[in-house]
This record gives sequence, structure tokens and C-alpha cells, in this order.
Amino acid sequence: MSQTRISIDVMGGDRDVETVLTGVTLALEHRPETEFLLFGDAKLIEPLLDKFPTLKAASKVHHCDVSIDMDMKPSQALRQGRKTSSMWQAIDAVNTGIADGVVSAGNTGALMAMSKVILKTLNGIERPAIAAIWPTMKGETIVLDMGATIGGSAEQYFQFAVMGDAYARIIFGLESPRISLLNIGVEEMKGTDSVKQASDLLTSSSLNFCGYVEGNGISQGDVDVVVTDGFTGNVALKTAEGIAQLISGYLKQVMVSSIFARIGYIFARGAFGALKERLDPDNVNGGTFLGLNGIVVKSHGGASPKGIAAAVELAIEVAANKMSEKIADEMDKMEEELLAIQE
Amino acid sequence: MSQTRISIDVMGGDRDVETVLTGVTLALEHRPETEFLLFGDAKLIEPLLDKFPTLKAASKVHHCDVSIDMDMKPSQALRQGRKTSSMWQAIDAVNTGIADGVVSAGNTGALMAMSKVILKTLNGIERPAIAAIWPTMKGETIVLDMGATIGGSAEQYFQFAVMGDAYARIIFGLESPRISLLNIGVEEMKGTDSVKQASDLLTSSSLNFCGYVEGNGISQGDVDVVVTDGFTGNVALKTAEGIAQLISGYLKQVMVSSIFARIGYIFARGAFGALKERLDPDNVNGGTFLGLNGIVVKSHGGASPKGIAAAVELAIEVAANKMSEKIADEMDKMEEELLAIQE
Repeated sequence: MSQTRISIDVMGGDRDVETVLTGVTLALEHRPETEFLLFGDAKLIEPLLDKFPTLKAASKVHHCDVSIDMDMKPSQALRQGRKTSSMWQAIDAVNTGIADGVVSAGNTGALMAMSKVILKTLNGIERPAIAAIWPTMKGETIVLDMGATIGGSAEQYFQFAVMGDAYARIIFGLESPRISLLNIGVEEMKGTDSVKQASDLLTSSSLNFCGYVEGNGISQGDVDVVVTDGFTGNVALKTAEGIAQLISGYLKQVMVSSIFARIGYIFARGAFGALKERLDPDNVNGGTFLGLNGIVVKSHGGASPKGIAAAVELAIEVAANKMSEKIADEMDKMEEELLAIQE
Repeated sequence: MSQTRISIDVMGGDRDVETVLTGVTLALEHRPETEFLLFGDAKLIEPLLDKFPTLKAASKVHHCDVSIDMDMKPSQALRQGRKTSSMWQAIDAVNTGIADGVVSAGNTGALMAMSKVILKTLNGIERPAIAAIWPTMKGETIVLDMGATIGGSAEQYFQFAVMGDAYARIIFGLESPRISLLNIGVEEMKGTDSVKQASDLLTSSSLNFCGYVEGNGISQGDVDVVVTDGFTGNVALKTAEGIAQLISGYLKQVMVSSIFARIGYIFARGAFGALKERLDPDNVNGGTFLGLNGIVVKSHGGASPKGIAAAVELAIEVAANKMSEKIADEMDKMEEELLAIQE
């Protein structure tokens, strides 16, 4: 496939249309072989597009009257935004095949609910998962699920591992990604029953299962995929964000605490810039929905243009690599393994 | 009570006996009205005590032949360390009343298992919890449970809230601590059923319940107590530790990345020292076991003398304030409220 077509829910998120268009334009610079379908209020989008001639040339605007609010409940979004909303139509473009993937910075719950209704889960997948990319001491690690499912059976954890494996092969280019389960201790006796059963299943499978990691293991970067349920994963992600903010707040305070610190800061400014860059969530923006018949990438609602570009480029990458098909293939193979293990 | 008596499991943890004794001596300097009962290998402790004349004068050594390894499973520890181990005897000193509280840097699972067997849970408490003290942007917040129980019913969350409330009153000196439940969204529809039911119970109670917080809310410091189950709490704590290590690693890298950064670092050294101090886990070391007939404080296994001192001082503080009795009283009152709500 030479050209990838990505649909964008331009109205989603906390940012204005111009920020979204700036981000998409940035992604287009890096991936010029891309076509965009922009779903949203044409009265807002079209005048702004004149500012982005490259994007204008590579995109088509699809007017939608309705947009989904960030604080709408999923059920409400499904009722009020069915067919008509920019979010629905952007996802539906993947379903009808006019787009290879969709990106939205909108309401996560609504995006997941609509994606499930429109795209359906892949054959054999009970529930989809949201996969995040975490910075680690050694690079990056995929963590899933980030909040699509609460709790989970051993089979669900197993499916998450299979999906995480396929995702890691694509975005990290690995032959045999190292898979682990998040737990509260490395001893066998700890953890919930379904985590323990999942560990047994994974040990017997052909996946490269490396056992349990604890919360601090995520950022150590010794594994490529960390599997957990959506409640725990979401708490871990948000806790990590909170601690990063806390430390950054402390850093600001100490850096103005004395004249020496101020002078030091001036000299070290470049280094601080580099630090900020490495910790910038925008650099790894993009929660990928795994397990659906189609590519859906969620950008952070408050992402900067650079963050939006990162999410769009991620969508291009996984769409160009036909991730959904690869997950479906791997799932088929693994279902057989699972049956053999369980017999 | 003029004098508080604390029993110490000298053999627990990853540190040597001297580190433990240095920490206990430091605590004694701050709280000179304390008496210590030191449980462990007398052949190791007694010669070292000559180096710590103040501690020697304020303590009594109880020889124990057995010590509990850090990697022993709780069931194994109970079998091999029953009656004979330093951990068992140090806890038992609280049960027999010769100590007002116990501190151990040993194996958390073993310490909890033995504490439950020896001290038993308070009347009305289904399961004990481990409470941690987190640094926040505005001070400190209590988070529980940190790993004593996995999963939990609405009633258990309610009990954790009551225990956290009593603990916050004592260590923060608050009249009406702000209580919250950890969840994955502030919308009512999110979260597990038991978290939602717990929210209903807490809303109807006389506790100062402030609703849900997400993971990033812990370090914002807008509430005094965050209630969650042991699996999620433990993952959150470990994830936070991992992120702090990651950022500190980044910081070290950028600070030597250029000559300007190096010069800057020299000027800002004092400020970095202050940053390190604020992030030092030793300053808030001490996981308090809540819901037992007696005070048990777990110190981090790898704590420095300052960290051990912090844990010992915490034990003195809660023992001197008769925390177990206060929790029992509040629990009695709350049980009545709970019955009234549930009718």
C-alpha cells in the first residue's frame, strides 16, 4: 500500500480546531504519502485550512453537525452522536473502507463505545484493550489495558498478551517481544487468581513470557509488553503522570530557591530542555485500541500539535502494517494453542 | 502514658544489624521517652550496642535463634518462625503488653501473616490494611491498602475509609480528614461495582467523603486519605517509585550532558540536594498496619538509618496516641451508621 488514508475526528478533545490541524499537518510533513479525511464542522475547518496548504491538498472535509462532549457518558454519546457526530463518522470511515485508521482526541469512553459498535471486536477477542507506550530507562514499553475493561479473566489477560505481542512486533520491530504480567510481587503466591491462571497459560504458550513485573518494573524497561486489566493500568498511568508533575513542581521550586540555583539553572538550561523533552508525554502520545476490526488511535485530549502528530503517525504506522489483520492471524494461532493447553 | 515501649525485629530487612541500631538510636534522640525491646541474635546485637550507649541504656535485648528471610512465603514463615523467630517474638511483645508497638523492616507478607495470627483483627474489621504516606504537592496523603488484601467488597472499602480517617486524625492532627476513593474516572459510571457501592455508603456516612480521585489525584494533595484495594494500591506505589527513579536517572544523564550543564549543576548543587531530600522515600518511611489489636509498622527493607528512624518515630506516635483503640471506637460508631444506611 503506497498511500495510507487516515480519518480525523477534528472536533474531539480540549483543543481548538487549529491545534488539531497544525498537528495533522506536522504528521503529513513526516509521512507525506498520507491522505486525510477531516470530520467536523466545515464552517470552522474550511477557512482554517487555507493556513495549511499542504494539508488542504492532501485532505477532504466531511461536514458533521454534532460533536461529542468530553464529559458525555458513553451511552449518552451513542444516543446523541449515532450516525451524525464527527466521532461516529470518522470511525465509520474505517468500517466502510474509505479510511485505513482513525484518530480522535475526544472522549475516550465514547470513542471506545462507538468503535465497538461500528467496527466490532476481532474474531475470538472478548474485549478490546487500550495500549499505551511508556518511556522507560531503556526505551519504551507497551502497557495494556489502560481502561477499556475492568477486571478480567485469565483468558482475557492471555488475549491482551497476544494483542500486545502483535503491536510490539509492529511498532518496535521485534521478532519476539518480551511479555510480562503486572502483579504485586514476584512470588508465585501473590496476585489475583486470574493473574495466576494467566501466568500458567502464558508459560505454556509459544509467546516469550517473562513472568511477573511489579509497578516499578514498568519503567525499568526489561520487558516490551506489560499486561494488566484496565482499572489497574489506568491507575498506574495516572499515578505516573501525577508523580512526574509532582517532581517537575519540586524541580521548579528548588531551581528558584537561591541565587546559586538560579545561576545554575541558567547554565543548565539546555540540559533542562532535554529533560523536558524526554518527559514530554506528547512524544509518546497515542493510546491504540487493540482487538477491533480496524485501527483506532486515541490522542490525549489536551495534546499539543506535536502530540497530535505523534498519535497520527502512530495510526499511519499501524494501519500501513495492517495491524488488525496481524492480530487476527496471531489470535487464530493462539486460540489453537490455548485449546491445547487447556485440554 | 509517659513512656512508650517499642519492640524491634532487629533481624528483618536487607540491612545489617548496625544500620538498624543506628536508626533506632536516631529515633531515640528525637523521642527520648522511649524504651526499646530488641529481638534478634544477641551475639550480633550485644557487642554492637556498646557503640550506641544511649540505646543500650534505653533497651533490652531478647535473644531469638530464628530470623525470617525476605523471600520466605508467609505460610513458610508461619511454620518455621512460629514462637521462635525475632519477628514473631517482637509482635508477641505487643500482644502480651510488654510493648506498645512493633517495628520490622522484614518480609511484609510474613509480618502481616504473623500479626494477624498473634494480634487478631479488631472487632468488626474483616481484613487489615497497610497504609502508606505519600508526598504530595501540598504535603502528605495517606493511601491504603498497599497490599494486605486483594480485591474488596464495598464494606471493606468502607472499613478502610474508617481506619484511614482515624489514622489521619492522629498523624496529621486533622479534625475531619478528607476521604476519597481511587477510581479510573470522576464520572459516576466508571469503576468496579464495589467501588461504586462503597461511594454510596461513604456519601451517606458522617465521614468527610469527597468522592473519587484518579491516580494523578494522589500527588495533587487535595484529599487526606485515598482508599483503594491492595492490588491497585501496591501497583500505584511501585509505579510511582519506578517513575521517580526514571526521572532521577534522566536528570543525572542531562546534568553531565554538556559543560554548561556541569557548571550549572555545580551552582545548583544545594538545590539538587533539597530536591533529593524532598523525594527521599526515607523521609516518609513506614507502612502502618491498620485494623489489628496492636500497632505494627513496616519499614522499607532497604531503608537507611534515617528511614528506620522515621518508621520507629511513626510507631511511637501512633502507639502513644492509642491508635488501635481509636480505630475500634470509630469502627463501633460506624458499624451503627452502616447498619442504618443499609436498612
